[in-house]
Amino acid sequence: MQHAERILMGPGPSNPYPEVIEAFTRPVMGHLDGDFLELLDDTCDRLRAVFRTQNALTFPVSGTGSAGMEAAFVNLVSGGETVVVGVNGVFGERMCDAAARCGARVVRVDEEWGTPLEPQRILEAHPDPAVIAVVHAETSTGVRNDLAGLGSAKGDALLLADCVTSLGGIDVRLDDWGVDIAFSGTQKCLGVPPGLAPVSVSPRAVERMHCRPQSWYFDMGMIADYVNGAGARAYHHTAPISMIYALHAGLGVVLDEGLEEAHARHQECGDMLQAGLEARGFDLVAPSEARLPQLTSVHVPEARLPPDTGEADIRRVLLERYGIEIGGGLGALAGKCWRIGCMGHTARARNVTLVLAALDEVLA
Amino acid sequence: MQHAERILMGPGPSNPYPEVIEAFTRPVMGHLDGDFLELLDDTCDRLRAVFRTQNALTFPVSGTGSAGMEAAFVNLVSGGETVVVGVNGVFGERMCDAAARCGARVVRVDEEWGTPLEPQRILEAHPDPAVIAVVHAETSTGVRNDLAGLGSAKGDALLLADCVTSLGGIDVRLDDWGVDIAFSGTQKCLGVPPGLAPVSVSPRAVERMHCRPQSWYFDMGMIADYVNGAGARAYHHTAPISMIYALHAGLGVVLDEGLEEAHARHQECGDMLQAGLEARGFDLVAPSEARLPQLTSVHVPEARLPPDTGEADIRRVLLERYGIEIGGGLGALAGKCWRIGCMGHTARARNVTLVLAALDEVLA
Repeated sequence: MQHAERILMGPGPSNPYPEVIEAFTRPVMGHLDGDFLELLDDTCDRLRAVFRTQNALTFPVSGTGSAGMEAAFVNLVSGGETVVVGVNGVFGERMCDAAARCGARVVRVDEEWGTPLEPQRILEAHPDPAVIAVVHAETSTGVRNDLAGLGSAKGDALLLADCVTSLGGIDVRLDDWGVDIAFSGTQKCLGVPPGLAPVSVSPRAVERMHCRPQSWYFDMGMIADYVNGAGARAYHHTAPISMIYALHAGLGVVLDEGLEEAHARHQECGDMLQAGLEARGFDLVAPSEARLPQLTSVHVPEARLPPDTGEADIRRVLLERYGIEIGGGLGALAGKCWRIGCMGHTARARNVTLVLAALDEVLA
Repeated sequence: MQHAERILMGPGPSNPYPEVIEAFTRPVMGHLDGDFLELLDDTCDRLRAVFRTQNALTFPVSGTGSAGMEAAFVNLVSGGETVVVGVNGVFGERMCDAAARCGARVVRVDEEWGTPLEPQRILEAHPDPAVIAVVHAETSTGVRNDLAGLGSAKGDALLLADCVTSLGGIDVRLDDWGVDIAFSGTQKCLGVPPGLAPVSVSPRAVERMHCRPQSWYFDMGMIADYVNGAGARAYHHTAPISMIYALHAGLGVVLDEGLEEAHARHQECGDMLQAGLEARGFDLVAPSEARLPQLTSVHVPEARLPPDTGEADIRRVLLERYGIEIGGGLGALAGKCWRIGCMGHTARARNVTLVLAALDEVLA
């Protein structure tokens, strides 16, 4: 098992906090062990703190970030219901697919990739949707979409938000913004390896959850009897114990640092990276007013590629010579942009200094 | 984070191998990193070895064991198709539920809990089912069901097998037995914490997979483009990197020991435990000819409970005084039996000696 030490500056995973790796070495307990249930409860409390919510139903889904997406849709959407989806990148597209597989009538509101969604267009797309779904931090473009403007005007609809790349890196305020169901991933700004999908569901969304969704594994009614069961916890599936240790530890690091401070650190790294790229004449995909600090999408500087060198060659050299991973473009932006993340434990100024200096060495 | 060291002798998780815990500490790589993809390929090869199969589509589903069940059903079963399910415990019941949520017409073949399924009854239950589904090792009762007798006579049906508790502990021969799709879990006889569901799909099952199943997360067509993608690997979801390191390491331990030798170790512990329980006059749930070595279900010896002591009190004392976890009964057997596992790294003779001696001390 050969493992180089990477500096993970792609769109995720990020480098995990050392405390997280230490947590993996803790002795495994059973999923019904009182000590483990206490740790699980504490993990859910910590998730409430980072989601800034009082939602009782807040827990880590036993799968990676996209499992959180699926869990959100299967429990809230069923055949014939209308779901309005804002689409300005790969992860908006993906939500259309997930909603359609639940039998929803999907109403897409497309925006140019790289342009933030317009809340008003989404609100006007349908008179009475069951769910409005948007991506908070679009990982394919580095664009931040507005949630607060949707939550305050959503009416009877439920607001569903993909917070995979936002949670822990920028402000996320489920209760203040009126988000009804949010899902995230561990491997971005929380500094934990991939494997769990934190979710949070508002009381009004809980009331509308389907009592027998098409998925057994993601049936939140059954899972709630385990996660939130008063007294006896009903076994549903075996919880991924060690990953929950890791998440618990990562959330501890973030909350010990302070959520505001962690956001500020991500902001500082993002500002530094984006200023550095622009100073070199590079063109960023997202407009300045909707730019994520934690994930920067930059057009490949074609004029600065050495002869007979493609963008993938540059990424390979960064990986092989410096051990730095950056990401390529996704979907419509494949081959056209790079995605540089500064998330979790990776969000340190020295990593920004390094990646900019390495690009200077590698580009013509 | 207070963590006692448990001896995990419940129905899973088992104690992980030390090499597995070490693997968790390896630096995280990206899911598209060439070095990680090599490790993933190697993990799939090792899974083929323990499943005894040549199936190209063999990989760990990104969820716990039940996620493997769901992945199997959603990709192979759709509305109106007939699924015959053998039911002699909780995990057979669960398959009925999962199949029904895919819109299947479920034909149940019930057998008394604690009695093995009769292949002939299952084969005669329907003239032309799309899928025949059975649990190989029924974790709720400790009963082993016959797969070979079904595979050789299944006709046009696909044979789907829950191998969660069998894989690594007793013989599993997908190709010899004609199993078309099998799923397992990491936290039983493989000695890895819970979090992944190894699956394997035969070429004839691959041909019949639905091209757009109701689940996005478990869409095996899309996942195969990542796991088996020749050259370019298409991103589907971020693989749970550290859990895959752990599984890779656990499979390495099992294969280094030798699959036959690992089975023999589980058999030896099971024989010793079952002989010890019977010598004390306890009544085992499974008949001797269909008894799993790795998971023993035993009727609670009511006559030997101290005054005012319930079976749950005995389990609590074992946990608190000795750090030994054993499991209670599930479903129809709740409160009536104990389930004692000897799986993975836990399958050591000294643990059997200890649990028997501890029971002697605790019981009247």
